[in-house]
Amino acid sequence: MNTTINETTWDTQKTKRLAKINVAADKGLKKLVPNDRVVELLETVIAREDKVCIEGNNQKQADFLSECLSQCNPDVLNNLHILQSVLALPSHIDIFEKGIASKVDFSFAGPQALRLAKLVQKQQIHIGSIHTYLELYGRYFIDLTPNVCLITAHSADADGNLYTGSNTEDTPAIVEATAFKSGIVIAQVNELVDDVPRVDIPADWVDFVIVAPRPNYIEPLFTRDPAQITDVQILMAMMVIKGIYAPYQIKRLNHGIGFNTAAIELLLPTYAEELNLKGKICTNWALNPHPTMIPAIESGFVESIHSFGSEVGMDDYIEKRPDIFFTGSDGSMRSNRAFSQTAGLYACDLFIGSTLQIDLQGNSSTATVDRIAGFGGAPNMGSDPHGRRHSSYGYLKAGQEATDGRVIKGRKLVVQLVETFRENMNPVFVEELDAWQLQEKMGSDFPPIMIYGDDVTHIVTEEGIANLLLCRTPEEREQAIRGVAGYTAIGMERDHEKVKELRARGIIQRPEDFGIDISKANRDLLAAKSVKDLVRWSNGTYAPPSRFRNW
Amino acid sequence: MNTTINETTWDTQKTKRLAKINVAADKGLKKLVPNDRVVELLETVIAREDKVCIEGNNQKQADFLSECLSQCNPDVLNNLHILQSVLALPSHIDIFEKGIASKVDFSFAGPQALRLAKLVQKQQIHIGSIHTYLELYGRYFIDLTPNVCLITAHSADADGNLYTGSNTEDTPAIVEATAFKSGIVIAQVNELVDDVPRVDIPADWVDFVIVAPRPNYIEPLFTRDPAQITDVQILMAMMVIKGIYAPYQIKRLNHGIGFNTAAIELLLPTYAEELNLKGKICTNWALNPHPTMIPAIESGFVESIHSFGSEVGMDDYIEKRPDIFFTGSDGSMRSNRAFSQTAGLYACDLFIGSTLQIDLQGNSSTATVDRIAGFGGAPNMGSDPHGRRHSSYGYLKAGQEATDGRVIKGRKLVVQLVETFRENMNPVFVEELDAWQLQEKMGSDFPPIMIYGDDVTHIVTEEGIANLLLCRTPEEREQAIRGVAGYTAIGMERDHEKVKELRARGIIQRPEDFGIDISKANRDLLAAKSVKDLVRWSNGTYAPPSRFRNW
Repeated sequence: MNTTINETTWDTQKTKRLAKINVAADKGLKKLVPNDRVVELLETVIAREDKVCIEGNNQKQADFLSECLSQCNPDVLNNLHILQSVLALPSHIDIFEKGIASKVDFSFAGPQALRLAKLVQKQQIHIGSIHTYLELYGRYFIDLTPNVCLITAHSADADGNLYTGSNTEDTPAIVEATAFKSGIVIAQVNELVDDVPRVDIPADWVDFVIVAPRPNYIEPLFTRDPAQITDVQILMAMMVIKGIYAPYQIKRLNHGIGFNTAAIELLLPTYAEELNLKGKICTNWALNPHPTMIPAIESGFVESIHSFGSEVGMDDYIEKRPDIFFTGSDGSMRSNRAFSQTAGLYACDLFIGSTLQIDLQGNSSTATVDRIAGFGGAPNMGSDPHGRRHSSYGYLKAGQEATDGRVIKGRKLVVQLVETFRENMNPVFVEELDAWQLQEKMGSDFPPIMIYGDDVTHIVTEEGIANLLLCRTPEEREQAIRGVAGYTAIGMERDHEKVKELRARGIIQRPEDFGIDISKANRDLLAAKSVKDLVRWSNGTYAPPSRFRNW
Repeated sequence: MNTTINETTWDTQKTKRLAKINVAADKGLKKLVPNDRVVELLETVIAREDKVCIEGNNQKQADFLSECLSQCNPDVLNNLHILQSVLALPSHIDIFEKGIASKVDFSFAGPQALRLAKLVQKQQIHIGSIHTYLELYGRYFIDLTPNVCLITAHSADADGNLYTGSNTEDTPAIVEATAFKSGIVIAQVNELVDDVPRVDIPADWVDFVIVAPRPNYIEPLFTRDPAQITDVQILMAMMVIKGIYAPYQIKRLNHGIGFNTAAIELLLPTYAEELNLKGKICTNWALNPHPTMIPAIESGFVESIHSFGSEVGMDDYIEKRPDIFFTGSDGSMRSNRAFSQTAGLYACDLFIGSTLQIDLQGNSSTATVDRIAGFGGAPNMGSDPHGRRHSSYGYLKAGQEATDGRVIKGRKLVVQLVETFRENMNPVFVEELDAWQLQEKMGSDFPPIMIYGDDVTHIVTEEGIANLLLCRTPEEREQAIRGVAGYTAIGMERDHEKVKELRARGIIQRPEDFGIDISKANRDLLAAKSVKDLVRWSNGTYAPPSRFRNW
């Protein structure tokens, strides 16, 4: 063996970190940094080519720190590698346009998807990869560990203990990866207090605290106005409840974002109650606190909800419902995106969401050619977890349906809930996903598919439900998809004989096959028809943002 | 809509919690509880039928609290539902034998597998489900949220801030699920200190702290003595390095436990170095601090290691290698099983492990008929994550190999590394897994399969490597497996013509096909041949437990 003494230095990261902090201290930048000196702080403690994680999800944003980073001098700070859940704010893109950062690894870029695509075209940005949230957090501990993270919390005490309030979200994952690998943790807070209501992040994990000049930005992303729910959405929601939730006895689940699933939520206290399903379905959730869940909660449908993040206006309601939500001793919620995504992956029996395009293999995508939107949490929630080992009624039943042989595993239900045409009469069902064109444009290894066809178990449209588990060949799958694709070109080209056979075998089911009375599919079935109704259901504790108040 | 005011009480859990804590306070049981009053404390703050999570993994154990629970009066405490990563200690089983608990949900029961099977037979225990670790944590936030958790930490301050030292492991996941759903958190610690070296769990998440009469038990589970590594294991390790790690350029990975993978670790500074693979493979790990990794680390092979838990004797070495390990400002490691499992699932390109049985579909199991051992982390690490969206060289290459069509996703490499016969000449390759008999005995929905054949990409034996990705039919897979199954009955019944064809197509590869000189496959190739060698490599900083010291 090699017995020469190893002369390598093994604490370069730690030494670099301390040197940065000492230089900052020499400039008078100690734990509490005044907000007019943040650009100086960042130029001091970030080095060229550092990996910098900017906290920003689809909800709360470390917006002040991000703006400060975008104001740094690109001669001092450049070639940064940005790690970020969501590219949401203009400043996130500015950082690249100004030449401060050159590479990004992220999950989702909804609001900035167009500008991001342009940056790629102008070669001002190199996209490492686009991830699902949990996957990105995983890489923080393997090969994308931040040198510096810019995070946000509600308040801090003088020591630097942080209180996130209900929007804990990504903070614990980001801080843990950074603080324990000789990184630097910088937090913006809304206010400094004598004592934080509870400690969400301990002070000794935090290096610098800044009171931002204004509260951090939070987007009310999960608020859907019941007034906008259509009769078609109500019909589809009835089919989901009677045709999927009831027969598979789905108790643990996650809903995607949008009006389709909001309609289901608002039908629980009415239609599902009529079907005598209370306590039998939809009891335990991995879900943000959707306001449209209030009637189901008040009606006793729900046992528990663990949340990725919070929702604007829901804080008071949540605090008054600690039997349902995860809350701290201070009363406010503790969300946690990493744990909720883990629960969504492994502890839920069903994910249901919407999409923009579905191909004949059942692959779905929300990519359009001129926008690089990314994924968020859907690929994780909408995948069959091969690592799962516990059973449940629905998981077993789905597993049985998927095989003619001996059952060795169950199947998570992954449901796509779409109208056959979306806005501007664009068909959802297509021969080829736009994702393939985007792949070519981006030069990536794979097309940006949101959910793989192999993982999809059911497609629900206004025409009916296609159960892909029961299909035995790719040809049957294709005809099952065509059989619910309505008047799209894909739907028109169905093999009518085969579709008839699939319906006889229960692979395709129409509303009448479930005994659904289509005439009942209208807004009278909604437990709440407006945001005002939701407020009433909450006994006035839900405080919707002003843009949702029209009374 | 329903406008009657809802009279339901929504804080029953919170009220119940406060009532328990008030009764305890009336008895003089405040935050710091003397260790001779713990039975009384548990009988006060646990209620019948409560869900109680006992911290215990394959490493550290809340052993004192578990013993105290087993000493409670079954007339007072009964029908508890125990949640637990690992049933490892006699007291874990005593709790059921004494009638204190009646149901368990867990992950692994290695040391108590036999007693557990007997309990099931005597109907003294109802097994909810057996999980993989991350799946169990997920359920803590959905439908298996603890009412009380019994955890362990290294030290506490008077406020109850906890310091876990390097064995953080499951603690953050358990405490978060309990503390934020009106549960009660009880911690045993080895010592009370004025100031904890760092805060791993904030004081306001903790209700009761007990200084245990002796330090918590920790098992040196990941220590493998190089002296026991055989020439056959070295040959297989050479095949893995040259036949899998090199061509797929595997940089991010996880190794299972055992001598087979320890051999690989000890060949990195020798064989892999000769092949000029330094910096090209095995750079970033989700792995416990295996002592057999020391030579690879010292030789500059490794960039980073994030750990599920720690390993006895490695603390000083880890503290001196902060560039490699995740350590806190106090110098000691911060492990975290939840994050490391997430990283193992989503951020690693390869998992390699061993098993007791493999069938002709490639399903593998460690179950034997009279032992209910469970799963641990292997099903999670050894599964292809359909939620993954980022690419890498190996992930893409494996995805390309798996399809003749357009590549829409990559594949994680899941490698089974086994000798064809295990101890007592039991064949590893079998027509039917013992898991099927165990399923019948347990009355469970699925046989306890550790890794599904669909997820396995390569099987490595002393006879060669079978690449299952390249197989196009179930028949080809079967012959590929037979083709490396040696002199087992399964191997003897191979179709020689087909196996020849598979070898011509590169689906089966023999050592000579890789240009491996079998004569070099001997212990001279190991970077360390003994535990003493490992200590030397570490410059004396690795302190092996006494049972591994024979000098």
